[in-house]
Amino acid sequence: MRRIFITLIVCSLAMMSSHAQSDSAMIKSIYNEVLTNGECYENLRFLCKNIGNRIAGSENADKAILWGEKVMKDYGFDSVYIMPVEVPNWIRGKKEVAYYSVEGKRLDVPAVALGGSVGSEKPITAEVIEVKSFDELRALGEEKVKGKIVFFNKAMDPMLINTGAAYGGAYEIRGQGPIEAAKLGAVGCLIRSLTLADDKYAHTGATKYDDSVTKIPAAALSSVDARELSRQIKLNGSIKFTLHLTCQVFPRKMQGNVIGEIRGSEFPDEFIVVGGHLDSWDIGEGAHDDGTGIVQSIEVARALKAIGYKPKRTIRIILYINEEFGNDGGETYASVVKYKGEEHIAAIESDGGGFTPQGFNLQGTDAQMEQLKSWKPLLEPYQLFSFRQGWSGVDIGPLKNDRIALFGLSVDSQRYFDYHHSGNDVFENVNNRELSLGAAAMASLVFLIDQSGIPSGEQ
Amino acid sequence: MRRIFITLIVCSLAMMSSHAQSDSAMIKSIYNEVLTNGECYENLRFLCKNIGNRIAGSENADKAILWGEKVMKDYGFDSVYIMPVEVPNWIRGKKEVAYYSVEGKRLDVPAVALGGSVGSEKPITAEVIEVKSFDELRALGEEKVKGKIVFFNKAMDPMLINTGAAYGGAYEIRGQGPIEAAKLGAVGCLIRSLTLADDKYAHTGATKYDDSVTKIPAAALSSVDARELSRQIKLNGSIKFTLHLTCQVFPRKMQGNVIGEIRGSEFPDEFIVVGGHLDSWDIGEGAHDDGTGIVQSIEVARALKAIGYKPKRTIRIILYINEEFGNDGGETYASVVKYKGEEHIAAIESDGGGFTPQGFNLQGTDAQMEQLKSWKPLLEPYQLFSFRQGWSGVDIGPLKNDRIALFGLSVDSQRYFDYHHSGNDVFENVNNRELSLGAAAMASLVFLIDQSGIPSGEQ
Repeated sequence: MRRIFITLIVCSLAMMSSHAQSDSAMIKSIYNEVLTNGECYENLRFLCKNIGNRIAGSENADKAILWGEKVMKDYGFDSVYIMPVEVPNWIRGKKEVAYYSVEGKRLDVPAVALGGSVGSEKPITAEVIEVKSFDELRALGEEKVKGKIVFFNKAMDPMLINTGAAYGGAYEIRGQGPIEAAKLGAVGCLIRSLTLADDKYAHTGATKYDDSVTKIPAAALSSVDARELSRQIKLNGSIKFTLHLTCQVFPRKMQGNVIGEIRGSEFPDEFIVVGGHLDSWDIGEGAHDDGTGIVQSIEVARALKAIGYKPKRTIRIILYINEEFGNDGGETYASVVKYKGEEHIAAIESDGGGFTPQGFNLQGTDAQMEQLKSWKPLLEPYQLFSFRQGWSGVDIGPLKNDRIALFGLSVDSQRYFDYHHSGNDVFENVNNRELSLGAAAMASLVFLIDQSGIPSGEQ
Repeated sequence: MRRIFITLIVCSLAMMSSHAQSDSAMIKSIYNEVLTNGECYENLRFLCKNIGNRIAGSENADKAILWGEKVMKDYGFDSVYIMPVEVPNWIRGKKEVAYYSVEGKRLDVPAVALGGSVGSEKPITAEVIEVKSFDELRALGEEKVKGKIVFFNKAMDPMLINTGAAYGGAYEIRGQGPIEAAKLGAVGCLIRSLTLADDKYAHTGATKYDDSVTKIPAAALSSVDARELSRQIKLNGSIKFTLHLTCQVFPRKMQGNVIGEIRGSEFPDEFIVVGGHLDSWDIGEGAHDDGTGIVQSIEVARALKAIGYKPKRTIRIILYINEEFGNDGGETYASVVKYKGEEHIAAIESDGGGFTPQGFNLQGTDAQMEQLKSWKPLLEPYQLFSFRQGWSGVDIGPLKNDRIALFGLSVDSQRYFDYHHSGNDVFENVNNRELSLGAAAMASLVFLIDQSGIPSGEQ
């Protein structure tokens, strides 16, 4: 009896080991395919150079949607379709006018309107008042703020190693700044761009208004221009700044998430979502944010198909629309899933830029984390080392429930905010290998989840 | 008695824990200093833009040596001096002429002579014969090779995750190609550049000759030009190529390693070396190879000094001369150390480019590796995760003996060979944060070694 027992143990260990060997061989094939025949870099070139930036609501976003549909159809995915999504339609208008004068000389500043900013009929000219925080602003009070342009000159914290954390710590200023300034009677709002680069690129991004507070125009200055404006304020005691934005809001319109599927052979009603967002801001080319996530997601399915892998579960590639300004694509998709009662076991998002991957963040349960960590030995040879609870992605976020495991591709974050939301987020700043390694990492995780499933949060 | 024993244990645990806390606080100070007041990026800008590339033997190398000495003196290091080193003096000569004609149209190719190549009085024109390996070349035999230009069209393996390993696998072609080709009577040698980038930059690097074999001119083509030449050979059956290099070798001359020290307070005769190489190839700006290692090494001592740290052991910053073409700086330094009988406990080199650091490689004993791994918890918060036996650095290599621990800063390798030895290795391709994080990692390791020492290999 004891011998039989030992034999059983030996057999099952041998099976486990051969299982791990075949998983390891499969992951090697995925990497080899992506690193030698990968198409994500050339797809990104097309998206950036032939379409360009693509804010939700724009004609370019329409073009990008049709492009995404065509690419996935050309790859022969089992089904490719567009899911209608209603999106906002904010337009920047004419090039921003922003300047001030020092000793009679006009200094033009390459400012960019924040996403969603109102415009004004005429240029606004007012004294600039510089603060670093909401507390500092409130301490000044209405008397000193009224009629002025508030300049929030707060840099991201360079001492945080993860730049995402530094962004998180400075982010509120951009989102809430115009409201806080207008509450005290300010007529305009300037912010230092959310970047760790020391350069002349201004970075846009969504801002908010509160319907009970006057909506004032809001724009970002580059880090170099913010420093210079601050210096000039100190030198001159007072600086009058002129800001003219001509942004407009048009009625919401229909665009869509582009969805491509490879149907599962054993459990076709269990879904694994892989995605990023197709929209970008309306400057630069939306290369790292989030063209890279789009082409990596498509590459996941292309590569698995190319090596002849037949998934057990249905893999759904989603090119979400409008992450940047309301998350309409993510919200709509999740509500459709809920309505249909579709079983989603996992979702993976890439929206941290196409940089060298470091691993995966999980938003999920301890059991799901244990499963992820059990795959470490298979992923570490590819320099993936970080497997922790953390942020997954905005687009897949609304899928969160008690059961699903949400994963975010974790990448080297050092350069991301140099490009993010700026005119410098262009194809040339993406490296083919870094991008491709991310796609291969995602495809490997999809393969592992597809093979063994992942504990439902409810278990 | 038992109570006393327990009290002793509790006390020593508390001491260990407070020790770890103060180490952790110190490392945090180092990172904060480098990330907020760091000077390595601006030092690199000066080295790249005001001096530029600096092959050993050149006037630019002389300038770089004087610059390095001045920078370290200005920082007030305890002593700064130049150690004489004899170096070669190879000169590229006039811009390389390289072309072939297709359908009567001359196609000029931006080739670069390999380092050390001979020139020829007149242009060499001969049929090109393409091979991928020495085996393929030898199989052709003298009959088919004699009088031809051999074109080694071998790419680095894109499937290897660590690009250094891919470089290692293709490297022999550049070093040995001209010898193997000449053995069979070839009159010239072309190689595909050692790069993973798909672009028009040609990459130089050292080649070798054997005094018993005819020395033939050798040059590298960009990856794009190599592919095109290969295509044209296939299309046309035969291509005549013209190559004219005017390289010359002048007598060896004296330059030097620049050395800056912070003297140890407790064990001044125990040395910790930190270095990179000051020379570069003679195209581009030698930014990643190895300007970044130079400015990081200097930053280590600057930052430790700036936060008021007084090392127990002597920290010696070394800007080595001529890593690229014979390792004279490294060899000379090691022979002086041996002659003087100086006790070197550790050396750290940064020569993999100024990219995001991942950890440290160790060339050392198991006991040294255990010590390194014991520091993991202190270094992991800074996204340093890789601590393994591996390559340290060319310059510090000759210090190897039974006792010393040699460390190499391990960095993300994906982009390195895009720039390495090419006209594209310029300041603009270095990211301030990536560079600075590397300097902070090195300074942290120096601090830890200085505090607790490291087991001698002899123990």
